Amino acid sequence: MSIMEMSHRGKEFLSVIQQAEADLRDLLKIPENYEVLFLQGGATTQFSAIPLNLCTSDDTADFIVTGSWGDKAFKEAQKYCKGKVVWTGKAEKYSSIPNQSELNVTVGAKYLHICANETIHGVEYKDYPSTGNDTLLVADMSSNFCSKPVDVSKFGLIYAGAQKNIGPAGVTIVIVRKDLIGKAQPSTPIMMDYKIHSENRSLYNTPPCFAIYMCGLVFGDLLSQGGLEAIERKNVEKAELLYDAIDASEGFYKCPVEKNVRSLMNVPFTMATPEMEAQFIKEASAQGMVQLKGHRSVGGIRASIYNAMPRAGVERLVAHMKAFQARHI
Amino acid sequence: MSIMEMSHRGKEFLSVIQQAEADLRDLLKIPENYEVLFLQGGATTQFSAIPLNLCTSDDTADFIVTGSWGDKAFKEAQKYCKGKVVWTGKAEKYSSIPNQSELNVTVGAKYLHICANETIHGVEYKDYPSTGNDTLLVADMSSNFCSKPVDVSKFGLIYAGAQKNIGPAGVTIVIVRKDLIGKAQPSTPIMMDYKIHSENRSLYNTPPCFAIYMCGLVFGDLLSQGGLEAIERKNVEKAELLYDAIDASEGFYKCPVEKNVRSLMNVPFTMATPEMEAQFIKEASAQGMVQLKGHRSVGGIRASIYNAMPRAGVERLVAHMKAFQARHI
Repeated sequence: MSIMEMSHRGKEFLSVIQQAEADLRDLLKIPENYEVLFLQGGATTQFSAIPLNLCTSDDTADFIVTGSWGDKAFKEAQKYCKGKVVWTGKAEKYSSIPNQSELNVTVGAKYLHICANETIHGVEYKDYPSTGNDTLLVADMSSNFCSKPVDVSKFGLIYAGAQKNIGPAGVTIVIVRKDLIGKAQPSTPIMMDYKIHSENRSLYNTPPCFAIYMCGLVFGDLLSQGGLEAIERKNVEKAELLYDAIDASEGFYKCPVEKNVRSLMNVPFTMATPEMEAQFIKEASAQGMVQLKGHRSVGGIRASIYNAMPRAGVERLVAHMKAFQARHI
Repeated sequence: MSIMEMSHRGKEFLSVIQQAEADLRDLLKIPENYEVLFLQGGATTQFSAIPLNLCTSDDTADFIVTGSWGDKAFKEAQKYCKGKVVWTGKAEKYSSIPNQSELNVTVGAKYLHICANETIHGVEYKDYPSTGNDTLLVADMSSNFCSKPVDVSKFGLIYAGAQKNIGPAGVTIVIVRKDLIGKAQPSTPIMMDYKIHSENRSLYNTPPCFAIYMCGLVFGDLLSQGGLEAIERKNVEKAELLYDAIDASEGFYKCPVEKNVRSLMNVPFTMATPEMEAQFIKEASAQGMVQLKGHRSVGGIRASIYNAMPRAGVERLVAHMKAFQARHI
């Protein structure tokens, strides 16, 4: 019987989801006082669920906006609490992350929301902002989840859609401090109430069994590779190959992101003209390197080098970059 | 590249979701003025989304409660509108469906909600209730979707979790009349707003690509089997085999459901004692027939004979029933 045919209430599937959770706890060293939930609806569903669960409608939630996803999270939160942007990189096209001294956080804010890695713009937090004692740190880690170790205890809540690093689209991980559960606004849809999912161990209704099964296999594989410290080393090496090639190109390739916050996962770069970029992408595609076009909202080129991208894939791209440049100088 | 690795914005996946929709429209003969959405979160998410999209908080929504799922839908709707139970079968343990004359529907109700097939209790609508001109008929078809033809034009909205008849858990189909879209309550979470999904052809955020791909394969298979008329004939034959065996057992096996509303999908039956039922299930399991235990909330035995259950599987169960009875008389 395949995983897709089993009852989600049978002991076979229970062992699948329990092992997946245990392995994720092991990978991220998740403290006992945090719940791990396997939910549906993507990070976008959490944009609503987080303020509904953590805030009253009178509470303030602060947002640092370092790209499109942080901006979407802010806009949705305004339906359910007083959302406030305390820093935005929009004016300089989301190429940096603020220092602590640049932040003007709201005293008494319920939480401060960040997007740990902006997929489209390629900016990634290396250190996380400090919040006051009463303010929780909340992070969307959809596009760098399980790419490196994280000190979970610094966060009130971490959430991540699976589809970048850990499994097929259709499951979202929420890691939330247990004392924050059970205070949802009365109008919270039942499927967005963390208490329901916590009490039912993510089995209140039929979960996305196949996607959870696949995530479990990936967690096991990451452990067997040496855990997230080892994964991070590989990711740093891959990213350095690419950024070094960009920086060594004497301006032929340009990465708009400030060096200290360049993403290990998404490497955006531009060339002199859109026509030259289109030619670069076309030639790459002919060599089997696909999906290098920048997000439709920003253009340019973007190499997404998630956990599953082997070093050899990055080396091949770097070779193409050098050869392409040599032909165009 | 597998379906799970592709971008959901690429032309390959677009052709997958478009073909799935086209085949479903073909199967159910869905009129042009209905939208087909592929969403996440199961039918339970729709328990919230439907009143949020169709009602103002002052509107009344009527509910016929013929089992556990209808009851859950009613309870959730009360958060967002004036939910009213116009008939419930709870007192007689959900074994029947009301006639039109038994219904005391609310004049001006926005919609009348039914559960077309109650999975746990095995009661299934054969004819659908009439509503006044101003009242929409809304149906949860999670457990009998694509098991037989349906006149979609009678409904304002039909919804169904995929996991019974059409694909792996993790995708929910919503078929909604287009003129009903775009009136969601202001507090509706963005992922529950049909307008967002309609405008974005179910691709507002990353959809559950693999589950949609699988549904598409099933839709194609159902078409190649001769469409839903042919599927219904097979389902009727399978169900009759089982109900005939129950009714011919002279009370050894009893089905609590009134004959005219017995489900083609879920066949519940009981025996003289729980111990005898447990023995029956144990012996069936030894012969490779599993998951025959009734839902934990009602006990007894339940044979779920969805589209994918072949006639031979039902024949094998009937043979076990006859042999078991012969050994216990």
